[in-house]
Amino acid sequence: MTSRIEKLKEIRKTKNVDAFLITSSASIKYLTGYFYNFETGPSPFHLLPAALVVGNSASLVIADNESHQLSTPNPAFSIRNYESYVYEKPLEGTKQFLIQLHEVYKQKGIGSARIGIEQSSFPYVVAQSLLSQYPGIEFVDISPEIAYLKAIKDSDEIEYIRKAANLSDVGQAAVLKYAKDGLTELDLFSKVRLEMETVAGARVPMMTDLVSGATTASGGGNPTNKIIHKNDLVLTDLTPCLNGYWGDSCNTIVVGTPTKEHRRIFTMVKEALEIGIGTVRPGVQAKDVDFAMRNHLAAEGGFGHHGGHGVGTFYHEEPRIVPYNTMVLEPGMVIALEPAVYKKDYGIRLEHLVLVTKDGCDVLTKFYHCLEQS
Amino acid sequence: MTSRIEKLKEIRKTKNVDAFLITSSASIKYLTGYFYNFETGPSPFHLLPAALVVGNSASLVIADNESHQLSTPNPAFSIRNYESYVYEKPLEGTKQFLIQLHEVYKQKGIGSARIGIEQSSFPYVVAQSLLSQYPGIEFVDISPEIAYLKAIKDSDEIEYIRKAANLSDVGQAAVLKYAKDGLTELDLFSKVRLEMETVAGARVPMMTDLVSGATTASGGGNPTNKIIHKNDLVLTDLTPCLNGYWGDSCNTIVVGTPTKEHRRIFTMVKEALEIGIGTVRPGVQAKDVDFAMRNHLAAEGGFGHHGGHGVGTFYHEEPRIVPYNTMVLEPGMVIALEPAVYKKDYGIRLEHLVLVTKDGCDVLTKFYHCLEQS
Repeated sequence: MTSRIEKLKEIRKTKNVDAFLITSSASIKYLTGYFYNFETGPSPFHLLPAALVVGNSASLVIADNESHQLSTPNPAFSIRNYESYVYEKPLEGTKQFLIQLHEVYKQKGIGSARIGIEQSSFPYVVAQSLLSQYPGIEFVDISPEIAYLKAIKDSDEIEYIRKAANLSDVGQAAVLKYAKDGLTELDLFSKVRLEMETVAGARVPMMTDLVSGATTASGGGNPTNKIIHKNDLVLTDLTPCLNGYWGDSCNTIVVGTPTKEHRRIFTMVKEALEIGIGTVRPGVQAKDVDFAMRNHLAAEGGFGHHGGHGVGTFYHEEPRIVPYNTMVLEPGMVIALEPAVYKKDYGIRLEHLVLVTKDGCDVLTKFYHCLEQS
Repeated sequence: MTSRIEKLKEIRKTKNVDAFLITSSASIKYLTGYFYNFETGPSPFHLLPAALVVGNSASLVIADNESHQLSTPNPAFSIRNYESYVYEKPLEGTKQFLIQLHEVYKQKGIGSARIGIEQSSFPYVVAQSLLSQYPGIEFVDISPEIAYLKAIKDSDEIEYIRKAANLSDVGQAAVLKYAKDGLTELDLFSKVRLEMETVAGARVPMMTDLVSGATTASGGGNPTNKIIHKNDLVLTDLTPCLNGYWGDSCNTIVVGTPTKEHRRIFTMVKEALEIGIGTVRPGVQAKDVDFAMRNHLAAEGGFGHHGGHGVGTFYHEEPRIVPYNTMVLEPGMVIALEPAVYKKDYGIRLEHLVLVTKDGCDVLTKFYHCLEQS
């Protein structure tokens, strides 16, 4: 994990920056191990934490009531807490954050430096506060460079993603086990989520498509009170976040007996997924993996979305498996592949998560895509 | 809802600003009706939306794939979409957002104005981009003024909060119905959440404490695989977000037979809650409500947190019911009151949500706090 600091140094050269001030939750997790549980939105008590890295000196400024969430702390970081939730005096988390950030900044002795930031997540108040003290500071967006760096996973990250992928497997098995006509989509989702959360031993933030019948034509959506009927298709895309790393998988089943047409399209989508998996190896461009799957399904109408995407501390990252992307696959990349066919009144999507290896790929999601329950 | 634009005008005078550029999800909901579903964290495809208000001219810049979430749009706002998720070319949501924001800004003809912002949520990239075109712009933090303005709810907001409070009631009833020795906390939570989501007809973002046995002494925490045993206390604090407005309630029950001590403390906490409710009326200071509850429980050790807090598009807002807060209660404020006693090996907290009326308050959460299941 400490090697992530070394990797940042490469960006230091290419972007000619003196330091990094990282504020996106995905990169904070990647660098420091801190996982921000975002399920209930932004906190009224504090800003998100910030990681300041100068050479080998790395500090994390984090709220006192959040630092316990450093479940897998990077020992390269020194932790600087600030007072956040209080009830005997007014809340001033932002002010306290800035006080601690300034102290850390001063210690590092970099003055009016060129500082790499991720522009979408960097708060104005932080920039303004630092600039008031060091007017010569220049903030440089390094989001694309961080995205590239994060695309190749370290071995510990791969283990975390394997565990998140396993949660997806648990969920897909639960869909097969519990899907039944007469249940609502929410009923089914409740059973699936409970099995996943029981394995995790905790609540699990989760992006989910769970739709039935004609709604599968749209590709997804959250579960509702819609009742699942006999012979309905059920499309379930499970993207759980386990301790800051995401899993991802999709299956489409029929609750009852598939039509000949459903069988034929399911088989074709499964072939496309297998073709995609067969294409993944170092040296191949991302767009070629996309093309292989898209092309196989073109005559059936195919799919109007990406063929896949990288997965890590964000559920959609590089390499994007899309028609334009010339990024070359490298060992250590983790990619979700999700070919689909959407017709007027139904849709079938199948997805696996794979790890690029030296000479091909390992499939991290272990469940078997099947259209029928048994 | 259009009256919210009028209310902003008061801040325009007191803070001497020419316009507002609002970016916090809570204030965006308040002003425009747009509810950002935050359950899966920040989006890789776009920035949060921004609301630009100049006098009576109000615009919302929002991603094309998010504008459908304007389930209760404020007709005073014109909607400006920007291209966000794409797969046939690179993602550039931030760039597209800024292009549309600049167009809207130009239309309003305010040039280098003084602009009110909420500093914690305002992205540096937005400030930088506007400043590059209009170097004389001055950004002024108006967070405290917005917080005060939002503390007094409009009638439509009160209806939304009533519905969210009802969801809390549904959840508390489910706890009483389903809590049983041998279940894990996650098992119980699953049943509770399903009942709540079925009433909502959708997934519901939810902050939850659901803990059993000795863990109640800590005041809360998320449910885990811990098994609920006979005669355990179960503390359940349910804070669901329904279409952008929050509900809030807490109850503590015993799964079996309470001890004499549990009965005694439960009764005292319930008295404290009733005293708190009895204290709430226009003209009273927030700190006096806090004192009334805290004082009643002081001899038992009481509680080391706020006595309550405002609830609206944020789950913790003004008026904070805390020892220092001299804010005077006014009709239309919505307040959660949550006195508690924490002992070494158990804790009991009880909470209701109330609406300040002309001559007292209405209790919005309708369930009856009881220690025993039947």
